[in-house]
Amino acid sequence: MKRLEQDIKTVATFVDETKPGWTRRPFTLWYKKAREWLMEQMHSINMEVSIDAASNVIGSIKGSHHDLPPIMIGSHLDTVTGGGRFDGIIGVLGGLEVVRILKEKGIQLRHSLEIVDFTAEEPSEFGISTIGSRGMVGNLTEEMLRRNDSSGLILRDAIREAGGRPDDIMKMVRKKGDIALYLELHIEQGPVLEQMNHKLGIVTGIVGIHRYRVIVEGKPNHAGTTPMNMRQDALTASSEIILQLEAICRKQYEEPVVGTVGKVTVEPNAANVIPGKVSFELEVRSIEKKLIQAIMQELIKFGDDLSKRRNVKITFDCLSQSEPIRVDPSIQQIIEKSCMSFAPSMKLPSGAGHDANQIATIAPIGMIFVPSRDGRSHCPEEWTDFKDVALGVHALAQSIITFDQCI
Amino acid sequence: MKRLEQDIKTVATFVDETKPGWTRRPFTLWYKKAREWLMEQMHSINMEVSIDAASNVIGSIKGSHHDLPPIMIGSHLDTVTGGGRFDGIIGVLGGLEVVRILKEKGIQLRHSLEIVDFTAEEPSEFGISTIGSRGMVGNLTEEMLRRNDSSGLILRDAIREAGGRPDDIMKMVRKKGDIALYLELHIEQGPVLEQMNHKLGIVTGIVGIHRYRVIVEGKPNHAGTTPMNMRQDALTASSEIILQLEAICRKQYEEPVVGTVGKVTVEPNAANVIPGKVSFELEVRSIEKKLIQAIMQELIKFGDDLSKRRNVKITFDCLSQSEPIRVDPSIQQIIEKSCMSFAPSMKLPSGAGHDANQIATIAPIGMIFVPSRDGRSHCPEEWTDFKDVALGVHALAQSIITFDQCI
Repeated sequence: MKRLEQDIKTVATFVDETKPGWTRRPFTLWYKKAREWLMEQMHSINMEVSIDAASNVIGSIKGSHHDLPPIMIGSHLDTVTGGGRFDGIIGVLGGLEVVRILKEKGIQLRHSLEIVDFTAEEPSEFGISTIGSRGMVGNLTEEMLRRNDSSGLILRDAIREAGGRPDDIMKMVRKKGDIALYLELHIEQGPVLEQMNHKLGIVTGIVGIHRYRVIVEGKPNHAGTTPMNMRQDALTASSEIILQLEAICRKQYEEPVVGTVGKVTVEPNAANVIPGKVSFELEVRSIEKKLIQAIMQELIKFGDDLSKRRNVKITFDCLSQSEPIRVDPSIQQIIEKSCMSFAPSMKLPSGAGHDANQIATIAPIGMIFVPSRDGRSHCPEEWTDFKDVALGVHALAQSIITFDQCI
Repeated sequence: MKRLEQDIKTVATFVDETKPGWTRRPFTLWYKKAREWLMEQMHSINMEVSIDAASNVIGSIKGSHHDLPPIMIGSHLDTVTGGGRFDGIIGVLGGLEVVRILKEKGIQLRHSLEIVDFTAEEPSEFGISTIGSRGMVGNLTEEMLRRNDSSGLILRDAIREAGGRPDDIMKMVRKKGDIALYLELHIEQGPVLEQMNHKLGIVTGIVGIHRYRVIVEGKPNHAGTTPMNMRQDALTASSEIILQLEAICRKQYEEPVVGTVGKVTVEPNAANVIPGKVSFELEVRSIEKKLIQAIMQELIKFGDDLSKRRNVKITFDCLSQSEPIRVDPSIQQIIEKSCMSFAPSMKLPSGAGHDANQIATIAPIGMIFVPSRDGRSHCPEEWTDFKDVALGVHALAQSIITFDQCI
């Protein structure tokens, strides 16, 4: 699998060297070069290459049964600033490699096969992520297309410059039935596969995320003159909520769940003033929506009691709730069988979002994970052994061959 | 006591109206006007008025025994930005009123009596507080005098413009024996008197403050992909320390103690990233130094265990340790007797620092507190009923009369 390794290394040369890591932000020169290179590779193995209305790069090979909708493999070549060489990239290059493997084995699929490099999957300067996959399924609104980045560039124009046709996006939307199956190979971006000593992960679903802003209001009194029993300390009250969220999420449930407080603001934030107000953002993720709801209910109840006990005001404001996506058990089963024939594998949910989230709104999806060293991603240290990427590509190819027969 | 009320209201007219509350920052136009007004009042009751080398305004009346060192009453007319009408101010105006009371009663003291408006007691733009009282006792170093504020003004020049003689400060320093007794009337700046329904507080001492910077280092992993049992969350670890400090300080000890975390910085402080690093400042205050040390020892031990339990790195760096000051029990006793004859009184430590901290390095000190409504200070809402201020002034005058005979 030297070829795949070389491809990954080549894409890692199309980077903005003024930024840390392997930075390739969407709509930049480096992004354009990487996509031009990708299209050359597709051409060189006789794929039909096109750019769709939302500026996604699509390479396709025809199947034997023209009336069947295509199977699609996709991911993205853009990175976060200071990102790595694997996130998204191995999903696109892995798709390319699958096509080469099929050719070498002399296999013609019944379904056409499309390999897609989705435009701008990572959070972009326009305040939107998964731009290309949104566009493909009709979730890129006119309002979004009118947004601009800090340089004043309008998303509509950025898509046009990238070869898209923004006016046609809504006309060209793919609908239910237009894609037989969508598969995505991705790095795990977490430590589970590595810690469990598994090489491949069969994704059971993509977690839903409920985000809340919590505001705790006490009184900003003098840290020296206010006795301990006369305080209304917003920070100690917040600390109790932060630890309670952790304790609730650490319990055993039927599905994995994670809860995090990542962002905290303390006011007035002076060493000699008891914090009068603390705001923080918390999120809970699981593929079981009812579990997220039960956890939040328990936490809000805890907050109510705490509020009385500590004489502070506590409000929970829901900022967003994204729906979990479940991978159909029959799809998991076929992917699992393919994975097991190559390496030790396990089922796990995806804790992060992907282009698959968008495509799932119109088509069945499946995902394969390969290990992330130390669970790191979105950083220069992001790493997956090339032989593990190769295992993922072989499992992906085998899954495609099996699905092609039974769907 | 209409006269005192009017004085407080008059001083409250010398304020920077572009700032919130009753702002009178040192070395400003409004500060200069307030001091000019003060000196006029002193003159009008035949006090000898001078400005010392450190630019403190001093009004004095001669005692009958010229060989005795003076008794001093002092506080300050400057305020924090957005401050109130009482903090510091009632100590200076109360001193002025004591002189009037003595005159009305026809009492000539054995000791001379000095009423001092100390320069710039509050934290100043030069990064120093208690500038004037430091200067009086030799704690204003050459290095401090060279510091500048954000406008480029050098402290040495600010003191000269305020009427001081910066080159003479060290020559004119008062030494042990130069002041027979220093007394300060001040608002409590805390809720204790009000909650205990007492009108006057006999200060037992001024707390020592030990400040630490605590740094907790974990790993900044993805909030979605890192299971709860594989996290090294610097924020949940910090929350445990914050709550533990509170729990330790809430225990019953022989002397009151308070512990506070007021300032917190979370990194990277993003909603979807587990906090990798949290820094916070904590302080413990008590008039019993050994108690502060024992509490910090217990907390650092807790941190050591926590560090192992949560697999994070925790460091405690001592930023500063100020020594507690104890008021001599015989002085407390005389002040208490004076207070009791006017209103319900109690003993309590001062949780905040004052000009008395500086003077205590060369002379015996005593302090009287009057209640702060809701315990508030350093804010526009800062309030003490005028009749409570008057009680404090009467207790101060009575204390002076008693001390004058027995020291």
